[in-house]
Amino acid sequence: MKHLIDIKDLSQETIKAIFLQASTLISPSKELAGKSVANLFFENSTRTLISFELAAKKLGADVINVNIDKSSTKKGETLRDTIQTLQAMGIDAFVVRHSDNKTCQTIKKWLNPKTKLINAGDGNNQHPTQALLDTYTILQHKQDITNIKISIIGDIKHSRVANSLIDCLNILGNNSIHVYAPEQLLPTRPNKLIICKDFQQAASDADVIVMLRIQKERIAKHAIPDLDNYHHNFGLTNDKLKLAKIDCIVMHPGPVNRGVEITSSIADGNQSVILEQVKNGVLVRQAVLAYMFK
Amino acid sequence: MKHLIDIKDLSQETIKAIFLQASTLISPSKELAGKSVANLFFENSTRTLISFELAAKKLGADVINVNIDKSSTKKGETLRDTIQTLQAMGIDAFVVRHSDNKTCQTIKKWLNPKTKLINAGDGNNQHPTQALLDTYTILQHKQDITNIKISIIGDIKHSRVANSLIDCLNILGNNSIHVYAPEQLLPTRPNKLIICKDFQQAASDADVIVMLRIQKERIAKHAIPDLDNYHHNFGLTNDKLKLAKIDCIVMHPGPVNRGVEITSSIADGNQSVILEQVKNGVLVRQAVLAYMFK
Amino acid sequence: MKHLIDIKDLSQETIKAIFLQASTLISPSKELAGKSVANLFFENSTRTLISFELAAKKLGADVINVNIDKSSTKKGETLRDTIQTLQAMGIDAFVVRHSDNKTCQTIKKWLNPKTKLINAGDGNNQHPTQALLDTYTILQHKQDITNIKISIIGDIKHSRVANSLIDCLNILGNNSIHVYAPEQLLPTRPNKLIICKDFQQAASDADVIVMLRIQKERIAKHAIPDLDNYHHNFGLTNDKLKLAKIDCIVMHPGPVNRGVEITSSIADGNQSVILEQVKNGVLVRQAVLAYMFK
Repeated sequence: MKHLIDIKDLSQETIKAIFLQASTLISPSKELAGKSVANLFFENSTRTLISFELAAKKLGADVINVNIDKSSTKKGETLRDTIQTLQAMGIDAFVVRHSDNKTCQTIKKWLNPKTKLINAGDGNNQHPTQALLDTYTILQHKQDITNIKISIIGDIKHSRVANSLIDCLNILGNNSIHVYAPEQLLPTRPNKLIICKDFQQAASDADVIVMLRIQKERIAKHAIPDLDNYHHNFGLTNDKLKLAKIDCIVMHPGPVNRGVEITSSIADGNQSVILEQVKNGVLVRQAVLAYMFK
Repeated sequence: MKHLIDIKDLSQETIKAIFLQASTLISPSKELAGKSVANLFFENSTRTLISFELAAKKLGADVINVNIDKSSTKKGETLRDTIQTLQAMGIDAFVVRHSDNKTCQTIKKWLNPKTKLINAGDGNNQHPTQALLDTYTILQHKQDITNIKISIIGDIKHSRVANSLIDCLNILGNNSIHVYAPEQLLPTRPNKLIICKDFQQAASDADVIVMLRIQKERIAKHAIPDLDNYHHNFGLTNDKLKLAKIDCIVMHPGPVNRGVEITSSIADGNQSVILEQVKNGVLVRQAVLAYMFK
Repeated sequence: MKHLIDIKDLSQETIKAIFLQASTLISPSKELAGKSVANLFFENSTRTLISFELAAKKLGADVINVNIDKSSTKKGETLRDTIQTLQAMGIDAFVVRHSDNKTCQTIKKWLNPKTKLINAGDGNNQHPTQALLDTYTILQHKQDITNIKISIIGDIKHSRVANSLIDCLNILGNNSIHVYAPEQLLPTRPNKLIICKDFQQAASDADVIVMLRIQKERIAKHAIPDLDNYHHNFGLTNDKLKLAKIDCIVMHPGPVNRGVEITSSIADGNQSVILEQVKNGVLVRQAVLAYMFK
């Protein structure tokens, strides 16, 4: 694996090799000693940025957080020149978040053969490390990922998290991905998905429920009356969770809008694996980096 | 010692153990290798932030400076979710500065048994590492801390530095803490303190004089005519310093308003230990971290 | 070498010793283990800041990027107090960029005998590490630096890059430094320089052409009609480059204004060593740091 740009670029074998790597990491380790990793976040983020920063530092890498606000791109330097300059400085791996879809596909063309690139989220397209940490978390709870009902609920249309997760589940052989969303927020490429007609259909006998963050600005834009209405129709509440299997796990990529897409007591409850996802995020990102530099 | 939130939580023995740790630290050391420390500064600060950053790095820790301005708390994430998310990422110790009193008391409840918490200043309540570095500095100059006259001068009422220092001196057995301030800026809990009626009483035969930074906005608010008036009545000048013992040391937590609470020539003079305080700050914070993870 | 403030402070022997150091560095190395380096950039910069950050980290130093926007200097602390406070915290080397000429000359006076200082660019005065990386790059392409024609083209008057490079070439014994610029942007101290009357004179038979970044605000200020006009008269185009020697190398300190001072195809072409300069920047800064702490 040279880059990690689109989860669809990975085979089932590669994903399993990354998970094996994750489960065998020891700390402090030095797999990336002498390597330099640059975090280029063109969109604000603390959560994912810190997760990557910790992952790289735990592996012994030198980490540079590029301050985009003060960078030469603000002086009119092209993205290409920024990337190639950093690469010339000896950056061995770029971790890039960008609001534009497919930015990494473009960046990839400018890289030397040895330089690595990890997509940390591009527009509403892909967020492959999130998909890896999500499926890694599922696998810690469910023995056979192929034969379980996984329901993804919320703004699927604009969600790179959902996109990458669906792709990753397809690669891993799951054929029971259910989605439920306000009509305007349903996925545009619904193949291989079971579109649910109501929350009940999505929740019933589910093994895994993935709630997505709803961006408040979407609600107004898509004619959803208000947050309460969203919570009532598309939020996960205790009543609705009872429809799922008794050992159903509840996931959320964070940050959580408590009381909007999910009731607080569920986010903090026994079935929630939200903090496990966060924990696995660092681990899986370490594994991806270690695997790339093997 | 699990956390360091309020200096009053420490016994005399613990304080002495930390000072022993400080005096035996060697550099580069690796007591915190493989540990991750997050600096969460909700108030601007460079001085204390860098002091903690250096202390943690010198011990071999991975240090994350959380950019609060760009963090998820700005997206409406609760402080609890921010803390628990970082903790799930593997942060082993939090260093927190916050404008609200007792923030660390709240944060403490959300932490796992092994996670450490250091209060780097909360409102006008506590700044325990400052008290430790101050008393550590005094002990380098005065053999017996119990029998010396220590005068704290300035805005004691709003000063977490003064609060923690007074508590720490009490724990260490000093019974001669004098304070002098504009009436409106006297401490609200004056027990165990000797309130001086004028600068002369505070300075006379003092072994240690601690000048506090006056925030310029307080001056207007508390009907002090102007900075010159403040300097004249409450600033340390050469004349006033002559009233103290000949080996009296002059302290200030910094940053110094030269010509306001202290004359420049004293700040830079032989009796000033201001830069020693800064130096000991890194050392004592290293000692606190090393001691916590022992 | 205690500090690196002005390239003119270095002898030819010292420069050669730094270059030898650069060519023998191995990675990961630990020459600066246990040392702390503070980057104090009072002017925005990513390129030079990251280059120094990487150089220091690759040597095993603890690196502190001081956030000037949030620092105590904003609270009215003097520059002297900021420097002395950081020094007391154990900073072993300062890397300073400032918009005022000779800031480092002033800072130098406040430092302890063991503390190092590197000028990372001051006003339009000096940028000594840029001169070192530029001449290091030239030496990788030209056997004898004394006997080659080097032409520097653009806003020489306001360029610390040009200033330091000219000084460094003088030290290394080159006597064929040609400059070409709009009349208002010619150097104010033209001794030892050959002022060209047109681009043709500068480019003809040149071994090295150094194009300088033109700041767009200068163009209006100095009555140059527009960017196209500047490009036509002072920009490097394929036609003009043909006048130079066939093995002439093209340099630029970056960031490049493509289509203004240089045609894109030249910046990316075979004769361009722009990315080599960037690469050598990290290496030479490592060498300077390692050499200082020897």
